[in-house]
Amino acid sequence: MDQPVLHPRSVRHTPLAAVVLTNGDIDHIAGLLVLREKTGFDVYATGDILRILADSAVFGVLDPDHVTQKRMQIGASFEPTPGLIITPYNVPGKVPLFQESGEVDTAMISENTIGLEITANGKTLQYVPGCALITDDIKDRFAGSDQILFDGTVWENDEMKKTATGTKTGRRMGHIPISGAQGSLAQLAGVTAPAKTFIHINNTNPIWNPASSERAEILDAGWTIAHDGMEIVL
Amino acid sequence: MDQPVLHPRSVRHTPLAAVVLTNGDIDHIAGLLVLREKTGFDVYATGDILRILADSAVFGVLDPDHVTQKRMQIGASFEPTPGLIITPYNVPGKVPLFQESGEVDTAMISENTIGLEITANGKTLQYVPGCALITDDIKDRFAGSDQILFDGTVWENDEMKKTATGTKTGRRMGHIPISGAQGSLAQLAGVTAPAKTFIHINNTNPIWNPASSERAEILDAGWTIAHDGMEIVL
Repeated sequence: MDQPVLHPRSVRHTPLAAVVLTNGDIDHIAGLLVLREKTGFDVYATGDILRILADSAVFGVLDPDHVTQKRMQIGASFEPTPGLIITPYNVPGKVPLFQESGEVDTAMISENTIGLEITANGKTLQYVPGCALITDDIKDRFAGSDQILFDGTVWENDEMKKTATGTKTGRRMGHIPISGAQGSLAQLAGVTAPAKTFIHINNTNPIWNPASSERAEILDAGWTIAHDGMEIVL
Repeated sequence: MDQPVLHPRSVRHTPLAAVVLTNGDIDHIAGLLVLREKTGFDVYATGDILRILADSAVFGVLDPDHVTQKRMQIGASFEPTPGLIITPYNVPGKVPLFQESGEVDTAMISENTIGLEITANGKTLQYVPGCALITDDIKDRFAGSDQILFDGTVWENDEMKKTATGTKTGRRMGHIPISGAQGSLAQLAGVTAPAKTFIHINNTNPIWNPASSERAEILDAGWTIAHDGMEIVL
């Protein structure tokens, strides 16, 4: 696609047109605090996630003179930079950890966890970093897409306990495991996208190990693994 | 000194007994958001800085079951881990950027910017990452200390403008420059600590350049530069 229109460059420019939030957890929002101050970009988020930013005075670093917060509506497309169309959609998930109280619904449909359909040059990419349950809606949406980026947090539901790194299951954290009959690998086996990539991979996940049978299994199934500095051209 | 008593280790331990905050700006507090969850440590801060944490829902990630927030009083010593005594003291400074409004007093005495006197094994270290003005009180406190870690943000007051990286002066940001008659190098020339180290150094500061005359000047004056991974044993 054509070069997106970025904000004016300087020796300290931030080469971002926009940040689009799909979740209100720390790993999705804390990065906003360390983007360079006084450079311009837009932040798109649902009403629930914008409220999370508003409820934390520290996000006042996003100076409204430079950073515009824009509310996304589920199902309503927007164009953050010319030629790039984004449509947010519901994905089962939960509220951020720091908002949890009492019994937590870990697979609810709300503005707290969403997926993004991103189209440019007639091609479509699905971005779903967190997903508690693969619904028929999600499968339908993935059908015919050119690229899928999907939640690869854990291989097994009880992986944190097995590796003595924690006590929570993947599902308790709002993440479907990759393996098993109900896992993402099986549930998305019918998706024929030319590129399928696991993202948001926990450091306990054995697919990180190039020599693992788990890595071999996802590669055999046509999946790859995202990496730092990855660039995507549609 | 003896090995401090740390919280129980596991494959995912956080090897910290305590975090002590000297300022409420992003570069001082955002790191709290990315420390590993569900591991125990204490956070010491003044009342003003604790209020900043309380006013930002996102700091709810500091689970009170594991992390205890403790209020420091200016001048009141505490022992965050056996054998290490810390005394907070006033340093001229300002409120965090995200709390600024109207005319800003950039060199006020308040709970927003403090220094720490740290003693162990009969030795004393001064930790002052932000300082707008070197008072006689500060000079008196530094006299006889074994180690000084001091604000080295900018070399010149108008360095950001000169390097086309910003418009604010060092003093506007609450930082005294290193150079000049009123700068820290001249003002602290009488301090005879065996180790004097600049910290909190902006990436515009020419002392980063090993070949610069500015680097030569601070080395000649008995100062060194802090580095990532630096460990200090008193």
